[in-house]
Amino acid sequence: MEAQVHRGRIRAICRSIAEQGFDALVVTHRPNILYLSGFSGDSGVLLIEHHRTTLFTDTRFTVQAAQEVGTLCRVEISPGPPLRRIGQALAIAKARRVGFDPEKVTVAQFRVLKRAGGVRVQWRSLPSVVEGLRIIKSAEEIALMHRAAALGSEVMEEAIRLLKPGVRECDIAAEVAYRMRKKGAQRTSFETIVAFGARSALPHARPTARRLRKNELVVLDLGAILADYCCDLTRTVFVGHAPRRVRDWYQAVLCAQRAALDALQVGVETGSVDASARSTLASAGLDRYFVHSTGHGLGLEVHEDPRLAKGQKQRVASGMVVTIEPGIYVEGVGGIRIEDDVVVHSNRTEVLTTAPREFMEL
Amino acid sequence: MEAQVHRGRIRAICRSIAEQGFDALVVTHRPNILYLSGFSGDSGVLLIEHHRTTLFTDTRFTVQAAQEVGTLCRVEISPGPPLRRIGQALAIAKARRVGFDPEKVTVAQFRVLKRAGGVRVQWRSLPSVVEGLRIIKSAEEIALMHRAAALGSEVMEEAIRLLKPGVRECDIAAEVAYRMRKKGAQRTSFETIVAFGARSALPHARPTARRLRKNELVVLDLGAILADYCCDLTRTVFVGHAPRRVRDWYQAVLCAQRAALDALQVGVETGSVDASARSTLASAGLDRYFVHSTGHGLGLEVHEDPRLAKGQKQRVASGMVVTIEPGIYVEGVGGIRIEDDVVVHSNRTEVLTTAPREFMEL
Repeated sequence: MEAQVHRGRIRAICRSIAEQGFDALVVTHRPNILYLSGFSGDSGVLLIEHHRTTLFTDTRFTVQAAQEVGTLCRVEISPGPPLRRIGQALAIAKARRVGFDPEKVTVAQFRVLKRAGGVRVQWRSLPSVVEGLRIIKSAEEIALMHRAAALGSEVMEEAIRLLKPGVRECDIAAEVAYRMRKKGAQRTSFETIVAFGARSALPHARPTARRLRKNELVVLDLGAILADYCCDLTRTVFVGHAPRRVRDWYQAVLCAQRAALDALQVGVETGSVDASARSTLASAGLDRYFVHSTGHGLGLEVHEDPRLAKGQKQRVASGMVVTIEPGIYVEGVGGIRIEDDVVVHSNRTEVLTTAPREFMEL
Repeated sequence: MEAQVHRGRIRAICRSIAEQGFDALVVTHRPNILYLSGFSGDSGVLLIEHHRTTLFTDTRFTVQAAQEVGTLCRVEISPGPPLRRIGQALAIAKARRVGFDPEKVTVAQFRVLKRAGGVRVQWRSLPSVVEGLRIIKSAEEIALMHRAAALGSEVMEEAIRLLKPGVRECDIAAEVAYRMRKKGAQRTSFETIVAFGARSALPHARPTARRLRKNELVVLDLGAILADYCCDLTRTVFVGHAPRRVRDWYQAVLCAQRAALDALQVGVETGSVDASARSTLASAGLDRYFVHSTGHGLGLEVHEDPRLAKGQKQRVASGMVVTIEPGIYVEGVGGIRIEDDVVVHSNRTEVLTTAPREFMEL
């Protein structure tokens, strides 16, 4: 992103905290720092005050911070813990109301901040200020997510072609990561899931040396990060000739995904998207096997706002990018999950992931 | 690890908290949960009370928790946030003094715990109880770390052989991850660093599409996780014929590593190991380019206790496994780092990583 984009985002944060009567915001969460400043180092804290922004980091990142942040904001390098310096800086600046995100600051970090800030600084919870901006993607961000999803879809199709009896879960996972990188991904956006047979009933199975046998379900859940943005997609295939029961299950999950996609419209509650998938599975008597939520936001992080889960009240808005991923998991038998990445536009949705989703017997 | 190993560890924790007058300990940090219970899921909290241990997790992990934890402890599954249920369980059990690690609990999580626990529960900081056990590796753990280090060393030698002018940083990073997995690694223990030329002056450089040119420094820093244990090693080579200055720098870093290794003995302060490397570089006039600490503990996490850093007072003990990784970084020119993994025994040290560390011109 260009410096101008970062400037605009920081201005939006300044407006937001000013409206809420805050003098400053401490940003500790790495994806938020990347979003606001372009700094990608794994140690740093951003302090946003009305008249200036400062990145506090350490000597390992002197050169990198200068390159990535440029003239956007001040960079303060020192060997000590950045939070103590931030507390001190706020004390010197006589800041009064300072916001922090209680979900992104540990109890120990908060003690450091409080001690260094002294008695005059009033620390107040101000959660999700940056996340509130990030939840709506710009056209530029959506273009990047298109590319990430295309890359993930290509690799998914290649991985499915590698599924032959005898191959190990870990071999497929290795191929997935390798092919993503060769196509330009920075890395996988999470640990690739490759689960054969009954192991596919574990929603978060880690790849093992288990070999694929004839007549088994295979769940592949993969994601890449390309130009800092994530994709996340799942396909389920059957190696061999599937029993009737499995075909029926697959169709039920596909219908549930369709229902959730249809429900995903500007203005509805995110919880109602989840409810659509859940009630579709319920009508097939399968809802008790659907043990997770329907989807989640996607962007710089592979799990971010909004949550498409039971009872969530947040309203769907144009510019949100979410996964839609209903699944069922039958212990001892296997699991089926179908997951795509979807952009919400004002009057339609757009599915970014292109890998075929009809039932496949290999 | 066998259930008996986990039982022994939980007993040790119970003894430790009893001695300090605590009724229970809340364990939120994932590597600590894995260490104590074998549960590898990415959502769960362990509650250790004197008479019982309970893993709280959600429905995505029902099967996995049963498989991994077995009869070691109770497993409580429910859709709600585990910390609220833990607070409630402690209130019902009339627990008084309950410990938590302020570095591993966010302000928001702590609020949930406090609210659910009610007024009778006294929450007290009890940091690093599990880390205090983990810092001393058993013979069984050291055997696993030997295997991880051997794997990492093999891949390092292979990666060095791939360094030819024209190859991209990201290609080498892709090969490293792929070869690790094919040799049985679960994944990389951190994002592989492959930095060519002046980019090697960034201690935490991320691989880019930059191509290798003749007469450049190359820093490769890689790590694998095998059977849950990490390795972490760095080599620096020169592609072409190195100028005198670079050869001298390399020898200085190698001497600093040797000095730190010699200083690493049972009973000394960890800070003195760092001081040995630092003073060796100072005698070559290079200490201002040594912008990080000399090393860190290694185990289930790639960075864990102890820290081999300036002023650290912790005493080196038999069974610790640490990295020794001095480096120098000259902006605009390049960097040199040499990193090995070392076990401390009662009367000697043992270097686990075997890749050659003499200066190499390719």
